[in-house]
Amino acid sequence: MTTLLTTRDVAAIVAAKGLAACFGTLVRYLEEDFARWGDFDKSARVANHSKDGVIELMPISDARLYSFKYVNGHPKNTRAGLPTVMAFGVLADVDTGRPELLSELTLTTAMRTAATSVMAAKRLARPGSRVMALIGNGAQSEFQALAFHHLLGIDTVRLYDIDPAATAKLVANLHAEAPALTAIVCASTAEAVRGADIVTTVTADKANATIIVPSMLEPGMHVNGVGGDCPGKTELHADVLRAASVFVEFEPQSRIEGDIQQMPADFAVTELWRVLRAQAPGRRTADEITVFDSVGFALEDFSALRLLRDFASELGLGREIDLVPDMGDPKNLFGELRKPPVPATAANEADVAAALHAALMSA
Amino acid sequence: MTTLLTTRDVAAIVAAKGLAACFGTLVRYLEEDFARWGDFDKSARVANHSKDGVIELMPISDARLYSFKYVNGHPKNTRAGLPTVMAFGVLADVDTGRPELLSELTLTTAMRTAATSVMAAKRLARPGSRVMALIGNGAQSEFQALAFHHLLGIDTVRLYDIDPAATAKLVANLHAEAPALTAIVCASTAEAVRGADIVTTVTADKANATIIVPSMLEPGMHVNGVGGDCPGKTELHADVLRAASVFVEFEPQSRIEGDIQQMPADFAVTELWRVLRAQAPGRRTADEITVFDSVGFALEDFSALRLLRDFASELGLGREIDLVPDMGDPKNLFGELRKPPVPATAANEADVAAALHAALMSA
Repeated sequence: MTTLLTTRDVAAIVAAKGLAACFGTLVRYLEEDFARWGDFDKSARVANHSKDGVIELMPISDARLYSFKYVNGHPKNTRAGLPTVMAFGVLADVDTGRPELLSELTLTTAMRTAATSVMAAKRLARPGSRVMALIGNGAQSEFQALAFHHLLGIDTVRLYDIDPAATAKLVANLHAEAPALTAIVCASTAEAVRGADIVTTVTADKANATIIVPSMLEPGMHVNGVGGDCPGKTELHADVLRAASVFVEFEPQSRIEGDIQQMPADFAVTELWRVLRAQAPGRRTADEITVFDSVGFALEDFSALRLLRDFASELGLGREIDLVPDMGDPKNLFGELRKPPVPATAANEADVAAALHAALMSA
Repeated sequence: MTTLLTTRDVAAIVAAKGLAACFGTLVRYLEEDFARWGDFDKSARVANHSKDGVIELMPISDARLYSFKYVNGHPKNTRAGLPTVMAFGVLADVDTGRPELLSELTLTTAMRTAATSVMAAKRLARPGSRVMALIGNGAQSEFQALAFHHLLGIDTVRLYDIDPAATAKLVANLHAEAPALTAIVCASTAEAVRGADIVTTVTADKANATIIVPSMLEPGMHVNGVGGDCPGKTELHADVLRAASVFVEFEPQSRIEGDIQQMPADFAVTELWRVLRAQAPGRRTADEITVFDSVGFALEDFSALRLLRDFASELGLGREIDLVPDMGDPKNLFGELRKPPVPATAANEADVAAALHAALMSA
């Protein structure tokens, strides 16, 4: 049997553990896995592009565990009331190929992306950073703000989005969730960036945009560039990259998908794992400009799926589904066709709950 | 919400529709999709190899639908009571990226592989073929025997496997399922192949084997080579391929994974879709030897997932799961964390059924 974790289950994990603790443990899992970079069979993700979006598969494995994520990117979806990004993924046993865990990864992707940003900023932002600009106030923005607040000591966020309703939603969520975090609504990107220690860009439009231009840069800033993550989708002016030390997750993928897609192939970047392993420096001086050109790498989902597995197991969450057959005689697959049906096969939980309710009412 | 079809659900579909009708409709769906080959965004599958096996992802899409399959291959699994091959897959809407259907594909892979073999044999085997040799009597063998019996008029199968228990299991299943099909147990591959119109090889060992050698060939034979399907796993002697007209699914993938992996890169093969489109001949003469070097291509799973979707919808099978969030405001992903929990979230059906039972007993 395979354990299924739905969106509700992952929300229940976060409710039980607390969001700050989830972020903290996730950063620890990420650091463990990035520090053993060489153990992993890595590849750039496989993308099927269409007119309005992309669907991607992101596999990775070490000697014991295999994971993959399915994720789409459809910026126009919000106009139809659907999320821009939806995701799910699987953790499987390398020794047998059996899928052990199938989980929602929409919420989880937002959490692991923010946790990865924190892992990078711990090495690339100035110590004592307190103010973060947050450009793009959509689905991922609360996660970035709260992860930096809980784990890095950010006490003020300066917000800008071309859609004021998105900013209003973010302010309301942050006020309810983290009253100690000051949220300042700004009238432009330039205003939001002014005086910030960290600049996080997490915009959704699929375009070669220049959200951050060189005139906005101040000495010692760390730019956490999250939204430029597929071909034709960038956020930073090329001169911002030229002015900075640039760090990436997995260079072959980032050359295609990251903000560095606009740079020559020999533009110097450093893979983040080398900083974790002390094979390369992170921030070197207080005045240096640093950029984390984040695109999202399969290893981050691998770490997140490990965490979900461990927390779900500890909390007794999730349910078992027969996604693959459990056979007495593994050579008798045909016998699976002729097993007697399970009574509840076609019933969803609502039906079962209704039956339970009816039974109790009539009793 | 995403519709989940488990192994039990797919068995229920086959029980409701009948296996012969499932095979027949599946061949029709396959023929429809292979005939519009140019509509698809195709790629060779993505494989993560380990010491004892492989885990693969097989994505494909047209302008409306996207599908992928997860499938493993671990020949040693049967020794631990697990299937060699386990699979599941997803059908998604290209326009939004939303996963519409998540289904078991272990049973389904066996059915679609047999249906693909029939689709090929309709064009490559001699008309009036009645006798099929079946070498390798493991998990896939019943499906091959029954698909050829129901759809191509095979009335006799001549069986051989190095494991007599596998053959005994196959004989028992065929006797129960198709009494009109004569099953003859043979003492060797050579004996099984003698006099056969069609030779189907579906062996499991990951080795460069030579199950079929040139001395076994008889004029007009069609070889349906199913088991040679990954690097280092072949079943046919190179001279069998040299003596035959060879047909494949998707040439770039077959060059890596098929029996033709042992041939030079310029060894001539014909992609099957060209025969369906009458752009290339199938069998040309009664004496010609033909080989279908089957490896399994993503398009076959795409067709099978379409069929499962249509049958499940017609029969009201499957259940809805929140694998991706269903949000009122698509920019408020964070709000998903703060929704009140669904009471039954953590319960599996067995728990709910037990609660129902307890409620009724105490009433």
